Amino acid sequence: MTEPTVNHQFRLAARPMGMPKASDWNQTTEPVREPSDGEIVVRTIYLSLDPAMRGWMNEGKSYIRPVGIGEVMRAGGIGEVIASKSPRFAVGDVVSGAIGVQQYWIGAADNREAGLFKVDPKMAPLPKFLNALGMPGMTAYFGLLEVGMPKAGETVVVSGAAGAVGQTVGQVAKHRGCRVVGIAGGQDKCRFVVEELGFDACIDYKSGSVKDGLKAHCPDGVDVYFDNVGGDILDAVLTRINMKARIIICGAISQYNNTTPVKGPSNYLSLLVNRARMEGIVVFDYAARYPEAVAEMAKWMREGSFRSREDIVQGLDKFPEALNMLFEGKNFGKLVLQVAPEPATA
Amino acid sequence: MTEPTVNHQFRLAARPMGMPKASDWNQTTEPVREPSDGEIVVRTIYLSLDPAMRGWMNEGKSYIRPVGIGEVMRAGGIGEVIASKSPRFAVGDVVSGAIGVQQYWIGAADNREAGLFKVDPKMAPLPKFLNALGMPGMTAYFGLLEVGMPKAGETVVVSGAAGAVGQTVGQVAKHRGCRVVGIAGGQDKCRFVVEELGFDACIDYKSGSVKDGLKAHCPDGVDVYFDNVGGDILDAVLTRINMKARIIICGAISQYNNTTPVKGPSNYLSLLVNRARMEGIVVFDYAARYPEAVAEMAKWMREGSFRSREDIVQGLDKFPEALNMLFEGKNFGKLVLQVAPEPATA
Repeated sequence: MTEPTVNHQFRLAARPMGMPKASDWNQTTEPVREPSDGEIVVRTIYLSLDPAMRGWMNEGKSYIRPVGIGEVMRAGGIGEVIASKSPRFAVGDVVSGAIGVQQYWIGAADNREAGLFKVDPKMAPLPKFLNALGMPGMTAYFGLLEVGMPKAGETVVVSGAAGAVGQTVGQVAKHRGCRVVGIAGGQDKCRFVVEELGFDACIDYKSGSVKDGLKAHCPDGVDVYFDNVGGDILDAVLTRINMKARIIICGAISQYNNTTPVKGPSNYLSLLVNRARMEGIVVFDYAARYPEAVAEMAKWMREGSFRSREDIVQGLDKFPEALNMLFEGKNFGKLVLQVAPEPATA
Repeated sequence: MTEPTVNHQFRLAARPMGMPKASDWNQTTEPVREPSDGEIVVRTIYLSLDPAMRGWMNEGKSYIRPVGIGEVMRAGGIGEVIASKSPRFAVGDVVSGAIGVQQYWIGAADNREAGLFKVDPKMAPLPKFLNALGMPGMTAYFGLLEVGMPKAGETVVVSGAAGAVGQTVGQVAKHRGCRVVGIAGGQDKCRFVVEELGFDACIDYKSGSVKDGLKAHCPDGVDVYFDNVGGDILDAVLTRINMKARIIICGAISQYNNTTPVKGPSNYLSLLVNRARMEGIVVFDYAARYPEAVAEMAKWMREGSFRSREDIVQGLDKFPEALNMLFEGKNFGKLVLQVAPEPATA
């Protein structure tokens, strides 16, 4: 290992009340040690900033254990193997996994929490492996197809339409022959999902009533709703669902920084009237099938019928502000933090 | 037709705000006319009083059209055909259908909204046809089995456990080899569902925390929850569901008389964490399969392994108070209004 040996890290200092603030983080440095047998050292290139990270900062049972106070903040990312004492990875390999908000990840190559796997830099630009070809894309693909079960001709609505998950949900639904209506904040995002991604329409929740937008753009009602936001938007969609509609509960970004209790969907009895279903999705359940999703979407990308957009913020030190952009709706596309330059070979 | 010819009726006078009150009803009388060709006259014997009736009194789109102001209140019931100009029914037949809150129903034998069909008084006592062998039983049977899909060994929880639907849900689940825990209001109801109906346990929501009760009685978590009540009890159960749990949304009696918006389930993100599902059921969807449910439950009744309890209030004039008993949790078992004596032959 020939690189300098200081590892800058962001550790969770306190469990946030509401929106995370500067004092909820500790910036620490530690030396990068040599790997032991079976271990590797990964230099972080890109980190994925995701709404789910807010949940990991809370105490309590969830689908994954909370990040402990004093621990390096969990984050998915892409990095380059710069030292290896494991046959699984060679120096120069590009890997993806939960490498954390730090410049270097050091540990056993088969560490389960990190879940490292090689990515092929020739297949797509590296940030795509944190977007459509990464967790957000897998979440979108399997949530839509396995839980939403859209049929050609049905109307699919997705909130957070310009975000990491929403982009892919809408484009996969278009590829399956559905009418697709996005919900996003602001005219720029709405224009993007319609003009660049090919959605049929997009409702700007900041400039008008979502309910009126749904009436206008979903004249035949809503068959599948992929919910990333919860709150009032979920309630508005519930008033427009069709018989036997499927609602995929993927997230509730509108509620993650609440200091009051989560707003449950007041209109949930629409499920009864319409014999409809609301079902949660956690992407890890589909891990064995990621390759089939990656293959299909990478093919669409090569054919030019699938796009994805990243919003890349530069510098590890920007992590706290960058994370909060998600909750303020300030990112436009999948939010990625670039920690180091891409290797020349990638 | 040899009977006296005055038909006492309850008509909807106003759409209630909150709990229905006396002034929301008009008592009217009209002569019972002779049936025309294709028509029959049915003398009401029993009327079914159901939580769903509260919803029918509201304006707005639902799974069934609202009762109009000035119309006879809709109600399911059992009656005897006392005059017939239709080949479908003969005088003396006992029929079930939406005959309304009145002493006599007069109309076309094949009237779709009434949906009249013959019942066999030899199969079971007549009130059973408004309970386990009627709409509540069909709702319970198909909601549990088709939406809940319980497997032997799983834990099934049902609210409103001593009510019309709850009684049957729990007993069908026991017949399918599940652990069954009821939630009901009061020690008498709890004792009844455990001692008489064979539930494994029952939580009295009036005397303690539902959450603590679930911890105590569902040590392996909740796989299926059949919800008749909504509100805080739904939220409590959501904290105890297992991975891939199924929640059947059948009703929300705690919310029907709200003058404020319905309380949505604050803990609905438990669906996400647990990859669980919440799905509505409307019994009419299973109409073609009622006979299979009736046959199975009637067989259990004959074998002595299935019971049901009715709470029978006497007299059509008691209708307004009797209906409100439902919302005050005052009925104990399926609430039935007896309007006329059973025919001697039944």
